[in-house]
Amino acid sequence: MNDSFLKNLHRCFDHAALQARVDEAAVRKLCDEALKYHFHSVAINPCWVKYTRMLLEKPETCICSVAGFPLGASRTDIKVKEAIKAASDGAHELDMVANIGWLVSDRFPQVEEETRQVREALPYNIVLKVIIEAGELTEQQQLAATRAAINAGAQFVKTGTGFLGNVTIKQVKTLYRVAQGQIQIKAAGGIRTLDQSLALLQAGAARLGSSRSVQIMEELRARENLDS
Amino acid sequence: MNDSFLKNLHRCFDHAALQARVDEAAVRKLCDEALKYHFHSVAINPCWVKYTRMLLEKPETCICSVAGFPLGASRTDIKVKEAIKAASDGAHELDMVANIGWLVSDRFPQVEEETRQVREALPYNIVLKVIIEAGELTEQQQLAATRAAINAGAQFVKTGTGFLGNVTIKQVKTLYRVAQGQIQIKAAGGIRTLDQSLALLQAGAARLGSSRSVQIMEELRARENLDS
Repeated sequence: MNDSFLKNLHRCFDHAALQARVDEAAVRKLCDEALKYHFHSVAINPCWVKYTRMLLEKPETCICSVAGFPLGASRTDIKVKEAIKAASDGAHELDMVANIGWLVSDRFPQVEEETRQVREALPYNIVLKVIIEAGELTEQQQLAATRAAINAGAQFVKTGTGFLGNVTIKQVKTLYRVAQGQIQIKAAGGIRTLDQSLALLQAGAARLGSSRSVQIMEELRARENLDS
Repeated sequence: MNDSFLKNLHRCFDHAALQARVDEAAVRKLCDEALKYHFHSVAINPCWVKYTRMLLEKPETCICSVAGFPLGASRTDIKVKEAIKAASDGAHELDMVANIGWLVSDRFPQVEEETRQVREALPYNIVLKVIIEAGELTEQQQLAATRAAINAGAQFVKTGTGFLGNVTIKQVKTLYRVAQGQIQIKAAGGIRTLDQSLALLQAGAARLGSSRSVQIMEELRARENLDS
C-alpha cells in the first residue's frame, strides 16, 4: 500500500453515529470530527439530516442518511419516501436496507424492483447504497443480492448495517468478485482498527462505515510518527 | 395469582417476530402459533402486515405493527405515514418508537408532539403504544416520557424494543407509578420464562411482548400438569 493511498485514507470513511440515543450534542461532535479529519461523510439517521446540513457548510463533507434502517422491513413506499425526504433535507448519499426477509428467501427480483423504485425517486446525483446484511446470507445470496443492486442502478453495495454482526474480509471479496467495476463496495460493521480497515480496502472495499473513524486515523498518525 | 389469571395468561402476549430476516415462512409460523395459543396479537414489521391480514381471519387475534422501529430516529412525518399505512394494511395496534435522542436530552414536549401527530393520524380504534427504550433513560426521564405518552393520548407505554437490552421489574414499577390508570404498560425485551412473565405482570404490566410466548405457555402447561 503506497503513501498516497494512506494519505487519502480519511476520504474512505463514512463517519457514523447511527445509534438510537444519538442527540444534538452527539451530532455536533460527529460533524466537528468529520471536519477536523476531512472524512468523506457523516452518516446519521433521518431525523438529524436537516440539523447536520446546518452544521456542515463545507462541500467536502457529505451527508449520508439511511432508509428502512436498520431492519429493512418497512414498506417499499416508506423507503421511497424516506429517500426523497433525506435528499430534500440535504443528504448527498443514501444507504437503504434491502428487505432481508426477501433476500433470505431468494426473492431477488423483488429486491431489485424495490431498489429501482428508490433509485428512480432520488435525484440522479445522490449516491445510493444498498445494504444486504451479508452475514445473514449464503454466499450465493450475497452474489445475487449484489447483482440485484447493480441491475437497479445503485452505486454501492454495503455489507451490513453494523447492527447484525461484523463485516469479514471474505464478504468483501465475494461482493468484489461479482461487482466487476459495475458497483462499488462499502464495508461496515465492527470496523475498529487501522489494520482491519486496510485489509478491507485491499479486499476491494472503496468505502468504510465506522463509528471509530477518529481512533483509526489516530492509529495511522501514531504509526506515521513512529516511521518518521 | 389466582387461577383465572393464569387461565388468561395467553391473552397478555403480543407474539413477536421483528427480526430483519423474518420471511413469509416465519410469518406463517408466527400466525399458526398465535391461533393455536390464542395470543392477543402477532407483532410484525410493516412489510408483513398485509400478508398477515390474509393469514389471520379470526378477529380474536390482533395484528400489531411498528413505526420508526427500532431506532425511533426517523422523521416524524415518516412515522405518521407508517402508522397510517399499517392501519390501512390491517393492523389493529401500533407500537411506535419515540425519538430516543430527544428523550435522553430531555426534549419531552417534542416527544409528546410527535406522539400526538401519530395518534391523530390513526383511526380512533387503533391502539397506540409508545416505546421509550427505558434502559437508555434515567428514572426521571422514564417518568417524563410516560407523562408525554399520556398527554398525547397513547394507550400504552412500552419499556423497550427488545433490540437494546432487557426489561426489568424496576422499569415496569417506575412506569406503573406514574401511569395511575391513565395508560397501560407493555413490557418487552428478553422475556423468556414463565416466572419472569408473571413477575412483570404483578409489577403492573398489562401486556408482554415476546418471541418466546410459545415456550412460556408450554412452561405454564407443564406446571399445571405437575400440579394436577
